[in-house]
Amino acid sequence: MSANVQDTIVLFGDSITQGGWQPNGFAQRLAYVYARKLDVINRGLSGYNSEWAIPVFKQIIAKKSEQANVPGIALFTIWFGANDACILPSRQHVPLPRFSANIAYFITALKDPESEYYSENTHIILITPPPINTYQRGADLQSRNPPVALDREFEVTKQYAEAVKEVGKRHGVPVVDIWTVFYDAVGRDEKKLAKFMDDGLHLNAEGYEVMYDSLIQTITKEFPEIHYEKLPSVFAPWAEIDLKDIENSVQANRFKI
Amino acid sequence: MSANVQDTIVLFGDSITQGGWQPNGFAQRLAYVYARKLDVINRGLSGYNSEWAIPVFKQIIAKKSEQANVPGIALFTIWFGANDACILPSRQHVPLPRFSANIAYFITALKDPESEYYSENTHIILITPPPINTYQRGADLQSRNPPVALDREFEVTKQYAEAVKEVGKRHGVPVVDIWTVFYDAVGRDEKKLAKFMDDGLHLNAEGYEVMYDSLIQTITKEFPEIHYEKLPSVFAPWAEIDLKDIENSVQANRFKI
Repeated sequence: MSANVQDTIVLFGDSITQGGWQPNGFAQRLAYVYARKLDVINRGLSGYNSEWAIPVFKQIIAKKSEQANVPGIALFTIWFGANDACILPSRQHVPLPRFSANIAYFITALKDPESEYYSENTHIILITPPPINTYQRGADLQSRNPPVALDREFEVTKQYAEAVKEVGKRHGVPVVDIWTVFYDAVGRDEKKLAKFMDDGLHLNAEGYEVMYDSLIQTITKEFPEIHYEKLPSVFAPWAEIDLKDIENSVQANRFKI
Repeated sequence: MSANVQDTIVLFGDSITQGGWQPNGFAQRLAYVYARKLDVINRGLSGYNSEWAIPVFKQIIAKKSEQANVPGIALFTIWFGANDACILPSRQHVPLPRFSANIAYFITALKDPESEYYSENTHIILITPPPINTYQRGADLQSRNPPVALDREFEVTKQYAEAVKEVGKRHGVPVVDIWTVFYDAVGRDEKKLAKFMDDGLHLNAEGYEVMYDSLIQTITKEFPEIHYEKLPSVFAPWAEIDLKDIENSVQANRFKI
């Protein structure tokens, strides 16, 4: 059994989070820079919306009764909306007010001292869904057999991104507004979003690079105490091991998250 | 706090394991293919030898008294030797018999029912240290300021690789013999090992690719039950969620490791 020896970064979201394990994806990049400091746990679930994510949340976060021996969560990222914003009759669609309420639920469940999922020292960052490139997405869906009608609209996803920002503001939670970062970076020209997305929906390596950089900027500004450069390695650097007292030299050194 | 909802793959070793989080490194590749099935926990410690790893092992593996709520380890890889094989007067040097005993200790601690670290369902794979390219390593050390003498020898590291194979055979534990895989792949020409290593010691992306493929081959042959294609996703694929009973649809589905 794997002991509780390092705290974690938990990435919660849909396929765009799950895909973070690609080479140069944001999960891989975080795991690399946080090696020996925080473990990266990817709870990205392809196709999921915020509604289906609620019963998942209740299983991936330890209740008070389960908290013995489980690692803390230093950082919890919440990145939904890309599927919630599907247009009807998609079964993935979640109405906008409900989406906002679900995102607010995750925050309150972690930060309300009365919640059974209360996690005092967890830092939360919200991420907006990326803009949809309906040219790419439409072409992709049309090329399928049989062809599929466009399932997302540019302006609708924009509303879900706005909703994330509004929830963040209301709850005092920082937001990585990747919708705006991407759109501004291509001169607010939807077609040029192909720079960051191969299929109009999911990020390519360049998209993940820009997203990772934005995330690290937000950590630097909002939660500098958990920036990877500020954290010690849990186990000592090898050159610092005292050969006369190896055992004490390599006792886990956990910071207070 | 992060709940125990998925079991794990734990990668235990030195810098060559720690570096597995590089893009296309073996940790990244495992995390990608095992997403939603097993979490990858990297316990690679740059510079460490098997001797210093013993007190680390005792902290990263849960004792019986700590096992409530901690995830199981479906696969535990042990990859030491590259530093143990340093030649005297290096402080990283571990004598060969002691190295063999240390590797055997890790196996026995996990597999002996009397051990306080007993982990009945953990599959263990040993990995041999890669061959040293003393041409590259020597040039790297000579280029430092001040220059450093060669700290590893081709034939010495080979003996440590042989020792891993011997321990594996004696304990019935599969071995990924990356020493031989690399050396054979370059026609047994030490200089040509530059294909897999940029500095004569650490793996580059091509080295990790070959190593990952060898590891997956070993899993396929020795432990097919934990091949990623054989494992279900812990949370249901989104198209299988019953909209009339979302909560039951997404109950975690854990296989017996």
